[in-house]
Amino acid sequence: MQLRYHPYPLQLQHTFTVSGCSRSQTPDVLIAITHQGVTGYGEASMPPYLGESIESVCAFLARVDLFQFDDPLRTDDILSYVMHLDDGEPGAHNYAAKAAIDIALHDLAGRLLGQPIWRLFGLSPEHCTYTTYTIGIDTPDVVRQKVREVEGRFGRLKVKVGIEGDRRLIESIREVSDLPLTVDANQGWSSPEMALEQIEWLATQGVIMVEQPLPKHDLDGLQWLTERSPLPIILDESVQGPEDVIRLKGCCHGINIKLMKCGGLAPARLMIQLARMLGMQVMLGCMTETSCAVTAAAQLAPCADYLDLDGNLLISNDPFQGGMQVINGRVTLQTEPGLGIYEP
Amino acid sequence: MQLRYHPYPLQLQHTFTVSGCSRSQTPDVLIAITHQGVTGYGEASMPPYLGESIESVCAFLARVDLFQFDDPLRTDDILSYVMHLDDGEPGAHNYAAKAAIDIALHDLAGRLLGQPIWRLFGLSPEHCTYTTYTIGIDTPDVVRQKVREVEGRFGRLKVKVGIEGDRRLIESIREVSDLPLTVDANQGWSSPEMALEQIEWLATQGVIMVEQPLPKHDLDGLQWLTERSPLPIILDESVQGPEDVIRLKGCCHGINIKLMKCGGLAPARLMIQLARMLGMQVMLGCMTETSCAVTAAAQLAPCADYLDLDGNLLISNDPFQGGMQVINGRVTLQTEPGLGIYEP
Repeated sequence: MQLRYHPYPLQLQHTFTVSGCSRSQTPDVLIAITHQGVTGYGEASMPPYLGESIESVCAFLARVDLFQFDDPLRTDDILSYVMHLDDGEPGAHNYAAKAAIDIALHDLAGRLLGQPIWRLFGLSPEHCTYTTYTIGIDTPDVVRQKVREVEGRFGRLKVKVGIEGDRRLIESIREVSDLPLTVDANQGWSSPEMALEQIEWLATQGVIMVEQPLPKHDLDGLQWLTERSPLPIILDESVQGPEDVIRLKGCCHGINIKLMKCGGLAPARLMIQLARMLGMQVMLGCMTETSCAVTAAAQLAPCADYLDLDGNLLISNDPFQGGMQVINGRVTLQTEPGLGIYEP
Repeated sequence: MQLRYHPYPLQLQHTFTVSGCSRSQTPDVLIAITHQGVTGYGEASMPPYLGESIESVCAFLARVDLFQFDDPLRTDDILSYVMHLDDGEPGAHNYAAKAAIDIALHDLAGRLLGQPIWRLFGLSPEHCTYTTYTIGIDTPDVVRQKVREVEGRFGRLKVKVGIEGDRRLIESIREVSDLPLTVDANQGWSSPEMALEQIEWLATQGVIMVEQPLPKHDLDGLQWLTERSPLPIILDESVQGPEDVIRLKGCCHGINIKLMKCGGLAPARLMIQLARMLGMQVMLGCMTETSCAVTAAAQLAPCADYLDLDGNLLISNDPFQGGMQVINGRVTLQTEPGLGIYEP
């Protein structure tokens, strides 16, 4: 098996603001794994706050020796090798790089077996729900304009809250749309009591779920809030991999799984199984990514209660066509083998 | 999809004694699921101590409506339906019946995709270790005779201990063989202190692992023993499904996974992933079963530290040929699609 990779910075259609930072570009690395003339695609997307960079991803990928494996279907061996390649290195943080390999291997396996990945996972694509489309923080005029642009194409909107003026943001949206909303506070509320007050108001505004209301390590606060919140609390920044699902039982109603955080489809599947076992809801999220990584996450969409898979719709230079589509607001899975994406 | 099933009592080659009971027959139900002319095989084996019977298994299977599903690869939906079919029924205990469906569906999926099940699981068959062959409790003469019969064919022996005279049993074996031994006390030792004393002696006799030394609910005793034992402690009766893996962390070095206890390959895979995550060893065991269920368990053998997959070798009326073989003592996986078994 041969591994190739190259940096591919993503251009955002709109400058994007969450509580803490604004940006117009996201660093990204595209990879391809080829075996006997068949190629699987993968991708590492690196939002700056997760600690990876084009340099760190390329340095990690340069150490991955796939020539030692002669069957791409032996994912248990290959992914175990990749997952442990940085064991013992202080501060090692190569989950996006690992996710890229995991995604490309799954794509390759699906193409070699002639099956979409979701089918190899035993899933039913008609269970996919609506994806949210994220409305960034902006002036009321711009927010209303953005909402009007996507009305009809999406069935749910996601709103970034947790900063000054977020009630006005919700009210601006409600002036032009009655779509169900989810909100993401990105750890932005300062206390459990203040968060509860906000959530109780949001519940009156057609909001159906709240993401990461409090700082990620404030588990006591999150537990207190989860016991009282009228809306489901889904944790994102508090969650990285499978171990966290067990650790966070009781501190939330569910978890947001992202391939770039956990290292790919294999750990994501385990997280879903753990969440089900522990009675927790599942959200699937993404970074700003191309159709490659978004379609990879979408392979698990039949298992999710909430989907936030709009990453590829936020960029202007997606190099792929095909893959999952959002049709009438719903995630709609491809029927082609692997990820079903191609470079036009 | 069409489901057929029929009782098929298994005849044991030798009357089998463990601490607590003797028997010469095991109740068993064989099933077949057919879709578009392709058939997958499954099996429910019911050792009496697990609470299922031919009647209970057939009654459960009679309620399973597979006609509602038109794609056997949608295992997430189908197995979820089967797993929850007895929800809320007090004392419901249909894990062997559920395992039969799970096994047949995996066999069918493998046959439809033209792949052995282990390959669809991403595993590498060359990682399979030795399986043990179980020497029942008997007189020293008979024990020596049984050991001589299998010497050369097996690389490890398993000995049932935990009753009067078990040191003499080990010594009888050591007179004729120096193969590594595992021992299974089947909850038979009366106290942690007494168990530790036995284990310390066993460690001097070439024993490499101890199964279920204490009563299944004595977690305090098991934890005390695990902290002190010179040999790995693997739990069997204490373990049923995935929840138990989390619960038993610290009370053992590993777990014995059996398809008839946990409900099939899907929960068994989750148990393996949990055990790895929690740093626990994995043993794969079986009941007295035909080549069908033993070959199904063997699909996960590349993930296991200990294998006890001799169930089909203990019966005289195995209706299947093909499937996994024990070659030079090692589990050797089939390369044919599905389970690779057939009715001659």
